[in-house]
Amino acid sequence: MKEFELSKAFELLEPGPVILLSTFYKGRKNVMTVSWHMLLDFTPIIACSIGSYDYSYKALVENRECVISIPAIDLMEKTIQIGNCSGQDVDKFSVFELSTQKGKYVKPQLISDCIANIECQVVDIDLGGYNCIVLKGLAAWINPEKVGSKTFHAKGDGTFVIDGDTIDLKHLMTKWM
Amino acid sequence: MKEFELSKAFELLEPGPVILLSTFYKGRKNVMTVSWHMLLDFTPIIACSIGSYDYSYKALVENRECVISIPAIDLMEKTIQIGNCSGQDVDKFSVFELSTQKGKYVKPQLISDCIANIECQVVDIDLGGYNCIVLKGLAAWINPEKVGSKTFHAKGDGTFVIDGDTIDLKHLMTKWM
Repeated sequence: MKEFELSKAFELLEPGPVILLSTFYKGRKNVMTVSWHMLLDFTPIIACSIGSYDYSYKALVENRECVISIPAIDLMEKTIQIGNCSGQDVDKFSVFELSTQKGKYVKPQLISDCIANIECQVVDIDLGGYNCIVLKGLAAWINPEKVGSKTFHAKGDGTFVIDGDTIDLKHLMTKWM
Repeated sequence: MKEFELSKAFELLEPGPVILLSTFYKGRKNVMTVSWHMLLDFTPIIACSIGSYDYSYKALVENRECVISIPAIDLMEKTIQIGNCSGQDVDKFSVFELSTQKGKYVKPQLISDCIANIECQVVDIDLGGYNCIVLKGLAAWINPEKVGSKTFHAKGDGTFVIDGDTIDLKHLMTKWM
């Protein structure tokens, strides 16, 4: 993993891919799958729909840190399986054979097989009572071998849409670029 | 437009497509482009990153209603252009020749050329100070002629990724389906 400009990390999340979110709590690491997330600013500040019904919630509340990892389609089945079991019952890093490496700021580790990772600090819990946590990106990392790999998006019905072609419309971005 | 089951409307937004958001204020309709949005629950409750720097903000604060429309790729260039000008200067519905029709609950209208529309009520403004509004879906509408059309996702750098193949992984959704 190579360090990636934090001010550009929003570009990794803006298309709405399914992501992995890793925590560390009481000597144990865990990971969950998240598809409800959004950017709140470019620094980046990131909202994720996670509530007390999620096993990772307690780790986020207590330790206030996590890593967001962006899997490519080679990890698609594994990512869905990670989202369909609980860290309460399963040591997911071991069962799903995820390779990890240390980040710079937080105890949860980067997932080496992903396209990118963002180390995050929890800055808000249960925002507005909507079971929404707010994260501040501290550092971003990119896997040079995976740059340009396709991500996937949950459709909510058990099907997933894979990235297709990319269209360059920079010439129409007259206000924002 | 045909009415669509509201409890399934989250499936329209979960993949993270670029959306249009229409308002009506002081006798004038307006529309903006949004790519930072997420689901907060299945009813659906929807968060959108919109702040007082957006011209639509005042309409949302005052009238507390809007329509979310999901454009397919045939409206991609138009959607980006809508996001690169302000309703303060331009009558966007007229300039971009958007066809509209009445919804059931709110004054802003459905955009007939889109895949789907969701009539929404504003339930929270500036959530947690993050320039985030919260919407509650009241009714959903689908365009039978556009069902299955590809949507597009902002990459944040002026490029847009179009939906590719859809993969069915329902057999792995053991916990949630």
